[in-house]
Amino acid sequence: MALKVIKVAIVGVTGYSGLELLRLLKNHRYVEIVSIHNTANHSQMIAEAYPHLKSMYKITTTPFDPLHIMQEADIVFFATSSGVSKDLVAPFIAAHFPVIDLSGDFRLSAEDYASWYHKTPAPQTLIDQTTYSLADFYSASTTNYIANPGCYATATLLALAPIAQHHLLDKHNIIIDAKGGLSGAGKSLTTASHFINANENVTMYKANQHQHIPEITRQLQKWQPNIEHIQFNTSLIPINRGIFISAYVKLNEDTSLDVLHRLYTSTYYQKPFIRVMPEGTLPNIKQVVGTNFADIGLAYNQDTKYLTIVSVIDNMIKGAAGQAIQNMNHLFGFDETMGLELIAQYA
Amino acid sequence: MALKVIKVAIVGVTGYSGLELLRLLKNHRYVEIVSIHNTANHSQMIAEAYPHLKSMYKITTTPFDPLHIMQEADIVFFATSSGVSKDLVAPFIAAHFPVIDLSGDFRLSAEDYASWYHKTPAPQTLIDQTTYSLADFYSASTTNYIANPGCYATATLLALAPIAQHHLLDKHNIIIDAKGGLSGAGKSLTTASHFINANENVTMYKANQHQHIPEITRQLQKWQPNIEHIQFNTSLIPINRGIFISAYVKLNEDTSLDVLHRLYTSTYYQKPFIRVMPEGTLPNIKQVVGTNFADIGLAYNQDTKYLTIVSVIDNMIKGAAGQAIQNMNHLFGFDETMGLELIAQYA
Amino acid sequence: MALKVIKVAIVGVTGYSGLELLRLLKNHRYVEIVSIHNTANHSQMIAEAYPHLKSMYKITTTPFDPLHIMQEADIVFFATSSGVSKDLVAPFIAAHFPVIDLSGDFRLSAEDYASWYHKTPAPQTLIDQTTYSLADFYSASTTNYIANPGCYATATLLALAPIAQHHLLDKHNIIIDAKGGLSGAGKSLTTASHFINANENVTMYKANQHQHIPEITRQLQKWQPNIEHIQFNTSLIPINRGIFISAYVKLNEDTSLDVLHRLYTSTYYQKPFIRVMPEGTLPNIKQVVGTNFADIGLAYNQDTKYLTIVSVIDNMIKGAAGQAIQNMNHLFGFDETMGLELIAQYA
Amino acid sequence: MALKVIKVAIVGVTGYSGLELLRLLKNHRYVEIVSIHNTANHSQMIAEAYPHLKSMYKITTTPFDPLHIMQEADIVFFATSSGVSKDLVAPFIAAHFPVIDLSGDFRLSAEDYASWYHKTPAPQTLIDQTTYSLADFYSASTTNYIANPGCYATATLLALAPIAQHHLLDKHNIIIDAKGGLSGAGKSLTTASHFINANENVTMYKANQHQHIPEITRQLQKWQPNIEHIQFNTSLIPINRGIFISAYVKLNEDTSLDVLHRLYTSTYYQKPFIRVMPEGTLPNIKQVVGTNFADIGLAYNQDTKYLTIVSVIDNMIKGAAGQAIQNMNHLFGFDETMGLELIAQYA
Repeated sequence: MALKVIKVAIVGVTGYSGLELLRLLKNHRYVEIVSIHNTANHSQMIAEAYPHLKSMYKITTTPFDPLHIMQEADIVFFATSSGVSKDLVAPFIAAHFPVIDLSGDFRLSAEDYASWYHKTPAPQTLIDQTTYSLADFYSASTTNYIANPGCYATATLLALAPIAQHHLLDKHNIIIDAKGGLSGAGKSLTTASHFINANENVTMYKANQHQHIPEITRQLQKWQPNIEHIQFNTSLIPINRGIFISAYVKLNEDTSLDVLHRLYTSTYYQKPFIRVMPEGTLPNIKQVVGTNFADIGLAYNQDTKYLTIVSVIDNMIKGAAGQAIQNMNHLFGFDETMGLELIAQYA
Repeated sequence: MALKVIKVAIVGVTGYSGLELLRLLKNHRYVEIVSIHNTANHSQMIAEAYPHLKSMYKITTTPFDPLHIMQEADIVFFATSSGVSKDLVAPFIAAHFPVIDLSGDFRLSAEDYASWYHKTPAPQTLIDQTTYSLADFYSASTTNYIANPGCYATATLLALAPIAQHHLLDKHNIIIDAKGGLSGAGKSLTTASHFINANENVTMYKANQHQHIPEITRQLQKWQPNIEHIQFNTSLIPINRGIFISAYVKLNEDTSLDVLHRLYTSTYYQKPFIRVMPEGTLPNIKQVVGTNFADIGLAYNQDTKYLTIVSVIDNMIKGAAGQAIQNMNHLFGFDETMGLELIAQYA
Repeated sequence: MALKVIKVAIVGVTGYSGLELLRLLKNHRYVEIVSIHNTANHSQMIAEAYPHLKSMYKITTTPFDPLHIMQEADIVFFATSSGVSKDLVAPFIAAHFPVIDLSGDFRLSAEDYASWYHKTPAPQTLIDQTTYSLADFYSASTTNYIANPGCYATATLLALAPIAQHHLLDKHNIIIDAKGGLSGAGKSLTTASHFINANENVTMYKANQHQHIPEITRQLQKWQPNIEHIQFNTSLIPINRGIFISAYVKLNEDTSLDVLHRLYTSTYYQKPFIRVMPEGTLPNIKQVVGTNFADIGLAYNQDTKYLTIVSVIDNMIKGAAGQAIQNMNHLFGFDETMGLELIAQYA
Repeated sequence: MALKVIKVAIVGVTGYSGLELLRLLKNHRYVEIVSIHNTANHSQMIAEAYPHLKSMYKITTTPFDPLHIMQEADIVFFATSSGVSKDLVAPFIAAHFPVIDLSGDFRLSAEDYASWYHKTPAPQTLIDQTTYSLADFYSASTTNYIANPGCYATATLLALAPIAQHHLLDKHNIIIDAKGGLSGAGKSLTTASHFINANENVTMYKANQHQHIPEITRQLQKWQPNIEHIQFNTSLIPINRGIFISAYVKLNEDTSLDVLHRLYTSTYYQKPFIRVMPEGTLPNIKQVVGTNFADIGLAYNQDTKYLTIVSVIDNMIKGAAGQAIQNMNHLFGFDETMGLELIAQYA
């Protein structure tokens, strides 16, 4: 069957995720970018403001106009900061026009959103029409409005999915120590992102208060309903890209590393983007940076009965733009790897 | 009382810890370095091989000779790799000559050493004559042979001491996620320490097998005897110096962050090198790099009942050479801060 | 016209350049990799030794056998260290089989090679059958054996080409201060590549002795015959990838920044991989890392009459594997951008 | 002779240089800090705002009041941004009260300041009462108001002094390629100092327009009057601290590396902070970071007749606070090394 090129609009194109969509979609053979929009909502040649795009994109940003987008494009990506898309998407949802939202605005219930994002949520009726879609577990019954998971949530959920789906987690002891690079902190100029403060440093931030906590918990509950809380902290480390999850969990029943490793291998056997490391080895961040892979490794401690799960992703790709494209591939019936067959730089 | 200058010998001076002893002792007013020895055991002007020492040290390395050292010096530091000092120290111990050993050779029982270091241990009779001395909890009854704690052990023990000393730890759930820079991996050329492999990367190594595990457990047991095991993993992060400990623990009894914070504050009130952060704030690595401080902060999660303890040190100073000097100050009756009043570089 | 897939063999696949060829060729639609060979010359699943290739390559290294390669493949890449290909290529040259050599073995005359590489050169008769091909100035008359330029040479030559081709360089004052990341120093474990020595440091190495000096001089002479010598130094900076050339040159005649900028723009107008920055702006490394671009900017000093030319490339792509693929595209009549339409990561 | 403790005031204490003064002066035995002042001019416990100072300084910032400072202190340091001290120092100069100004406000003539800083200069009469003091060439005839040199100027002038003082520089070809870390760019939040933009990147900035150019030229002219212009560019490299100067110069007369090396060695023989590297070796940044040293090395190219001079300093110490303290030591008759006997961290 001949594939048809789909036309794509991007809102929030000058944020890190928007620029990453531009970068990745360049190599998707069946995508044409037809309109791009920035927050300032003015017109500029994108390649003038962003020299790395010179000669690759001749397109100009234009003011955001939902009707125009729906006429021109087949799908719109929102790569806006949290708090933006919730006020912009209603016309698209009303028209059943495909939307993939990379922000946190539609990942939580209105109540949770208000509590964790400290902002006014979208109306619950809008939220109800969206689907939270971890792309590697995409289900065809989803609506046209996809809430793309958060970066830490993606890495954590992929680390825990096999055991949560089998109800193996001891609900009292789910500890996630997450480490992430500076691109996760976004483009705005803050004390934390000043080179002098980030370089040669490690800082824990938002202890017990990270907005991805309810997103992770809610999805875990879908797999293993008795789960109530997770212990989740994030630390900023001096790298540009990458998330490294160290999850420490106890299990509900006696088992062995062998059995667990088989469980992970079988869960992810048909998932092209999840690579379970050979027994006895753990992944590092560099082997996934620049790719849409999530690599996962296990270590079991006979003394403490704790299972250590390490999961690594590129936060800008698997944790944002890449997963969004994977979700788009699902929505439009493309092979889910299209445009995403990327290998990490070894050196 | 007029203080007397003490004469110092250093064995293993060209390793990272030995060079750090040279650097720090330069600013100790009551220390004179009288002899230095390297593993290769040949003579060289130290400042020729190490240009950063040019014009600061005119001393030459000489072959290792215990009798000569005991004639010339008042104390000897062993800054050798593990497996070296155990074969060299007998004459010093026999003579009750002061030794501070920065290596792991005398921190464990012979049995534990064999299990965790995979090397032949020192005779248990020699081990019995040494004292493991966490310098901030130095006790005057120690012998003249001090086993200086390991870097990760120091940061972890200082994080847990106040609650372990009050028997508050739930022994089943003591989880330590440690992150450390490359200086901790030593000077030898390995795949892991190649810039290309370390930079822009995070790697977990020796999962459940780090040789500091028994060292930590043994000391915790002295404080809270029912402790059996800890869950302890270390990850390599791309910085030169620094350790960042994220400890996740449950407590034996209901308590509050307020009470815990007071416990930490009171435990460390008279300890000049331990700084407990104000309630609600956590320390970062940069505020201690270049110093002998251990900075500690707390966060309590009402949902999971987990207490997060963050502790940060400079692995080369508080975790090695600085603590060794602090122990030396104790041994010789100097103020423990002498030569160690260091402030971190802000920029 | 339907394009035909070409079959590729890679010798030296486990070095940085070989792994980069594997990475980039994955996204070349008309390439199939049919055989790979490492220096150790034994068989291994490449994806087992290099986890970042897991699920992307199922191929196994096999012993090097020229006849077999010529039967199976349409072209062979040598991504070996200097001193290797010179002893292996004779059968390919004899058979007029296409070869692209990424090493320095065939870039210089036998005499220059001996002087600058301190190794026995290939026979001059073999050297005479090769073509040094700066891919952006590829000329169809080249033979089948292409010597791919060195990374520093590429960045320097592209910086100077427009003025050298117009004989504008004052031959007495051609000063190139080059800065490069650690991937340029290769995979072997050296003191210089230890993280502790490279991080937070800058080191000038091989002052006046870099082996790319004769390569640059020889090519400049082809453009502007009166050139005799260049002043060329390289410094190692703590980044993984990238070269930053600061060239300081005087010109033979009075001119203006305007005129020079037009000269650069017109020289590179039809060259898809060379991007001349708008007048008044200079490129940085990040805008080309991950791409085959060379970005060039100019600044002119009215007081000193020196023109500053900044040129930046990704040493592993434009300076090695990418340029080799560009040369391959030329050889086989593909569009030169095929497989190389890459955009830099902004974050 | 018993030395007397001097009392110090610091204006602009919360900038990078001010904080560095606090850090270094802690280990100056004959200094007591009696008052500190920030730009915001309000009162705060400095150790509360800057946790790295906790337990080291109990002092509080107070509003700036010249009369009060002159009553309390023996000297005042201005560690303010450019454009601040010029409006504040008149009362001190009028009273012949010792001032060391780390900013650029009094390093240039009023005319040059206006041209290069694009700000209104101090009155020329005030400027005339100040002394620009490169501390290693301090002359006792200086006034009480010292303009402390800029960081790039210091590293460049120390690189060129021996040959300029002997009038050996070919005035047409003085090329300085300077590289510096992020602390030199200051504390304010800018696009350039965002970690994502600085890390894994190199950027040339202020090409031909750096405000240290006239400062360097003016001092060179004092040594070698025929010098008119220098070619000087700076590039930002991803390190916290350090300046690496690559100077490329031609000489007025035929000479040899041997002769030049002896010239450097003899010029700096009695200067405790200038270390000339052995012939054939060049310094790197790490060997001086954390110290007040400037390390200098030479390489001579027989083909091009260019002499390469590499000079490295810690921009925050030798390039700012350390040199200011060295100047203070001169002013008050202390040994110039007092408080500055610092060794670089090797690891």
